[in-house]
Amino acid sequence: MNLLLLEDGDFIAADTVQLSGRRLKHLLEVHRVAVGDSLRAGRLGGLMGHGQVIQLDALSATLEVSVDQPPPAKLPLTLLLALPRPKMLRRVLQTVSSMGVPRLILLNSYRVEKSFWQTPFLEPAAVREQLILGLEQARDTVLPEVIIEKRFKPFVEDQLPALAANTLGLVGHPGDYPACPRAVEQPITLAIGPEGGWIPYEVEKLQQAGLQPVQLGERILRVETAVTALLARLF
Amino acid sequence: MNLLLLEDGDFIAADTVQLSGRRLKHLLEVHRVAVGDSLRAGRLGGLMGHGQVIQLDALSATLEVSVDQPPPAKLPLTLLLALPRPKMLRRVLQTVSSMGVPRLILLNSYRVEKSFWQTPFLEPAAVREQLILGLEQARDTVLPEVIIEKRFKPFVEDQLPALAANTLGLVGHPGDYPACPRAVEQPITLAIGPEGGWIPYEVEKLQQAGLQPVQLGERILRVETAVTALLARLF
Repeated sequence: MNLLLLEDGDFIAADTVQLSGRRLKHLLEVHRVAVGDSLRAGRLGGLMGHGQVIQLDALSATLEVSVDQPPPAKLPLTLLLALPRPKMLRRVLQTVSSMGVPRLILLNSYRVEKSFWQTPFLEPAAVREQLILGLEQARDTVLPEVIIEKRFKPFVEDQLPALAANTLGLVGHPGDYPACPRAVEQPITLAIGPEGGWIPYEVEKLQQAGLQPVQLGERILRVETAVTALLARLF
Repeated sequence: MNLLLLEDGDFIAADTVQLSGRRLKHLLEVHRVAVGDSLRAGRLGGLMGHGQVIQLDALSATLEVSVDQPPPAKLPLTLLLALPRPKMLRRVLQTVSSMGVPRLILLNSYRVEKSFWQTPFLEPAAVREQLILGLEQARDTVLPEVIIEKRFKPFVEDQLPALAANTLGLVGHPGDYPACPRAVEQPITLAIGPEGGWIPYEVEKLQQAGLQPVQLGERILRVETAVTALLARLF
């Protein structure tokens, strides 16, 4: 937790918060704070600055908060991701949030196992929890938007062309394609497939929607690693 | 498992292997192979090609193996990493192996908790297990070398200058430093710090050994994400 992220419900006065639960535990056990200590804090969806501990016991911490800095800029990106397996999903949500992706679309694909859609990790509160952990890691305050699209064809045919318009549209896909470009200066729409990759029909539909296949080399990377590697190269 | 990795002990004849245990389970439960099926296989430390299932039951699988392709090239890189916490260590070992790092040095740092050095995940068999998973993921056959250096100062003073000679030496470190370069054409020695970063004394010692600090932006990334992002940008 490199940033103490504060929500509206934490405020007991205009510049005072009271914390318990996970964040209190983290302050006590990891940061080992004492009264008078100051640490980086930010308001969810708002500015960042510092919080100073003014009261502390086993049940709660009270901090005086002062925020005046904007959070870091987001990437000019819409990321489409074939729904990963549940354990990977949680880590990918943290990665996406910490790297500054503003919009993530979780999409069905032929190679996404049907059972993955049943995971409790897809419930809004569970998604939000992982996104928050990513923001706390990276020092950001703005939650990414996460959109769930369980039907590939209607989404790719009816919505993706408008989403991808006026952006550089890319599909990360192993094969005989151009290398993924570097340090792109324009907004990007990037689609990353499931373990085992998109099937040819899906690549074709994504191409028709305006996305061009690019590759990262012979090595097959886990989804989480591929997301990070593609974003680090593109931006 | 995108590559079935075969070890010397698996061979019961010059081109025939017999498998049981983890790989048999994976063949049956994930690949759902049948007699006659062919899948990508490679010999640890050697060539890659295919294996065809010629016998299969609940206790063992026998495959006829034919290999003639070299594994993918490694990155021209020595990676120094402050020892991560045990759970992260396992994932980092997989990432390093799948991305093609040929040599990893796990180093002490002021902010590495002493208890991390006691983890069973640092035992040679446990390290090897994670490296093998990374090779199977990426389709590579050559294990990275992993070196453990429990003492920062003697290593950085006495060994690092020679290791870093004739390479581009870099320290990934947040702060007011030049941005990490892109698409570098020469061999690299890259040091990545622990959670919380190197302390100033360590950055100074790494600089004296020939490594220059570079940064990746304001966002603080988890070690695993930072490794992937730096490698994707550098190569």
